[in-house]
Amino acid sequence: MRFVVGVMGPAKAPKRDLDNARVLGEFIARRGWVVLTGGRDVGVMDAACEGAKRVGGSLTIGVLPTAKDKVSRHVDVPIITEMGSGRNNINVLTSHVVVVCGLSGSGTVSEVALAVKAGKPVILVEASPADVAFFRKLDQRLVNAAASPEEAIELIMKLMDGHRRRPRRAEQDLDRSLPV
Amino acid sequence: MRFVVGVMGPAKAPKRDLDNARVLGEFIARRGWVVLTGGRDVGVMDAACEGAKRVGGSLTIGVLPTAKDKVSRHVDVPIITEMGSGRNNINVLTSHVVVVCGLSGSGTVSEVALAVKAGKPVILVEASPADVAFFRKLDQRLVNAAASPEEAIELIMKLMDGHRRRPRRAEQDLDRSLPV
Amino acid sequence: MRFVVGVMGPAKAPKRDLDNARVLGEFIARRGWVVLTGGRDVGVMDAACEGAKRVGGSLTIGVLPTAKDKVSRHVDVPIITEMGSGRNNINVLTSHVVVVCGLSGSGTVSEVALAVKAGKPVILVEASPADVAFFRKLDQRLVNAAASPEEAIELIMKLMDGHRRRPRRAEQDLDRSLPV
Amino acid sequence: MRFVVGVMGPAKAPKRDLDNARVLGEFIARRGWVVLTGGRDVGVMDAACEGAKRVGGSLTIGVLPTAKDKVSRHVDVPIITEMGSGRNNINVLTSHVVVVCGLSGSGTVSEVALAVKAGKPVILVEASPADVAFFRKLDQRLVNAAASPEEAIELIMKLMDGHRRRPRRAEQDLDRSLPV
Repeated sequence: MRFVVGVMGPAKAPKRDLDNARVLGEFIARRGWVVLTGGRDVGVMDAACEGAKRVGGSLTIGVLPTAKDKVSRHVDVPIITEMGSGRNNINVLTSHVVVVCGLSGSGTVSEVALAVKAGKPVILVEASPADVAFFRKLDQRLVNAAASPEEAIELIMKLMDGHRRRPRRAEQDLDRSLPV
Repeated sequence: MRFVVGVMGPAKAPKRDLDNARVLGEFIARRGWVVLTGGRDVGVMDAACEGAKRVGGSLTIGVLPTAKDKVSRHVDVPIITEMGSGRNNINVLTSHVVVVCGLSGSGTVSEVALAVKAGKPVILVEASPADVAFFRKLDQRLVNAAASPEEAIELIMKLMDGHRRRPRRAEQDLDRSLPV
Repeated sequence: MRFVVGVMGPAKAPKRDLDNARVLGEFIARRGWVVLTGGRDVGVMDAACEGAKRVGGSLTIGVLPTAKDKVSRHVDVPIITEMGSGRNNINVLTSHVVVVCGLSGSGTVSEVALAVKAGKPVILVEASPADVAFFRKLDQRLVNAAASPEEAIELIMKLMDGHRRRPRRAEQDLDRSLPV
Repeated sequence: MRFVVGVMGPAKAPKRDLDNARVLGEFIARRGWVVLTGGRDVGVMDAACEGAKRVGGSLTIGVLPTAKDKVSRHVDVPIITEMGSGRNNINVLTSHVVVVCGLSGSGTVSEVALAVKAGKPVILVEASPADVAFFRKLDQRLVNAAASPEEAIELIMKLMDGHRRRPRRAEQDLDRSLPV
């Protein structure tokens, strides 16, 4: 089984979030992990897959809201749900870790909340202190902040390492998914 | 077609939120509107339906995550989705207005975000200024704050009235659903 | 909790199926049961709700594929799923019994199969022997044939009666839903 | 974008269906196509992925009903839907062609019907004439029969070829997905 990192963020994102997503996509792919996004050809979804496809042998999965949405040309396998925003729950359930580039979109906010609900670790990249505080209230343990894509990758490595050493029931999921 | 008010809030809610939900349920039912909740027999979901069923002829709909969940005995029609938290999107899509009693749960936070995404008016009852500010960033126009259940009901009446006078395409949905 | 009878059938249905659906809707409503359909303003969905609304105090629920679909004007509460044909599973999970008027549509065929999968009793009205045989292979016990709407209603009464007398785990669902 | 072939069939399948699924999985993987199944560790789902993983560089995707299901160890990327049988629609929407090994399960029957509804070509492998006739009534053009896995692969090649020569609106989907 492959390790899947979800990269979430707004369809209409500022340059900073797009740059972060592109770098993240590349870093994730370099480690042999799968990049999962919302699959459309815009914003953070598109940028993360674009970054990943710079790496030979990378795999990108896009979980699309409908069959009519334009698929990012950097997506290898589009999963068609025809579920609109209902697909947001599938995005986070399928990801072992969710990394977030930008919280200006309501879709992304719903994904962070659904990830916490599903017990998935979330890493907010360059989020404002107020936004980090908002989500930490929901779950102190699951919500992490990173100042850069590099720090986000380090955090994922640490999460994996920590889970390797003391595998517990609730963390089984992450543990089982390690790319051995 | 009946007018549907979604009452959302945590499964584990403090007394204040439960009391607000109960009063809201009663007020909504008195106006002949349908109360829609997440349908389980706990927290705000249960309290809102309990309040509604104090009123003769009321109708309560519960949209349940799975077929195994215990249904609130105050729910008239349980809609079984077998979709887990994916059902949160159905809750907000089916409601004409979403009223929120308590934001301590990640499920509820996802519902507010999904409601905004779907263009539904949201009313946060007794929410903290920080929480109101967080959601207003997503959409200034759709996110409303109310200091009490009474004020929430007044806000719904105003929303309906405003839409009645200047029906526009985007608001057609609310407008069409008025209980004429 | 109310007893819910799903009436399923094609959007493009011959007159016979529409007539059966209309009569069924009326009979179901007369017994105080809820009529559930796919909610659109066409075919069997529309006809079943139309029949139900001839009866004072009846309740019709329509589970719609998208927010853009035209809702039948005979539907009291449209449940908006934004899930396309994925909503077919919700239709059958929410119904205590599924009655089918016409099997010419692939959507309806999927609903019969999903109903059997979910352990719901299905009643095929005026179906061809070949179609009845096809579904009976999937589950002899759950798939019933009726020569008319009247016979379908009698079958539902018998199913309820049988379950009342020997309540067992697997049948708990139907049993619990009796309109006491 | 990769070409995705869905292999569907019962969880409890006779040896013949399992053998067909295994051979199909291998043939599909050899052509560089992605094998998509329901993802569980049983029946046709498991066998198709097992066959595919005999081929170096193959990719298998499993669309799982819940987070609790045991995933086939031959699945590379499990898509977790938490949607029960509602995930059947995602299986067929994501597949460019659906190949069916065995129709004894109600879940598989629902998938064939949903595939036809979604306009996807279906190939029934070693199906009985009665079963082929049943589904051909729904759509003569989309429902194909194959006497063996080899014939199924030939049919997929022909479908792709036919679509390459006369790309039309309705077939655009298959056409776009050719592994150029």
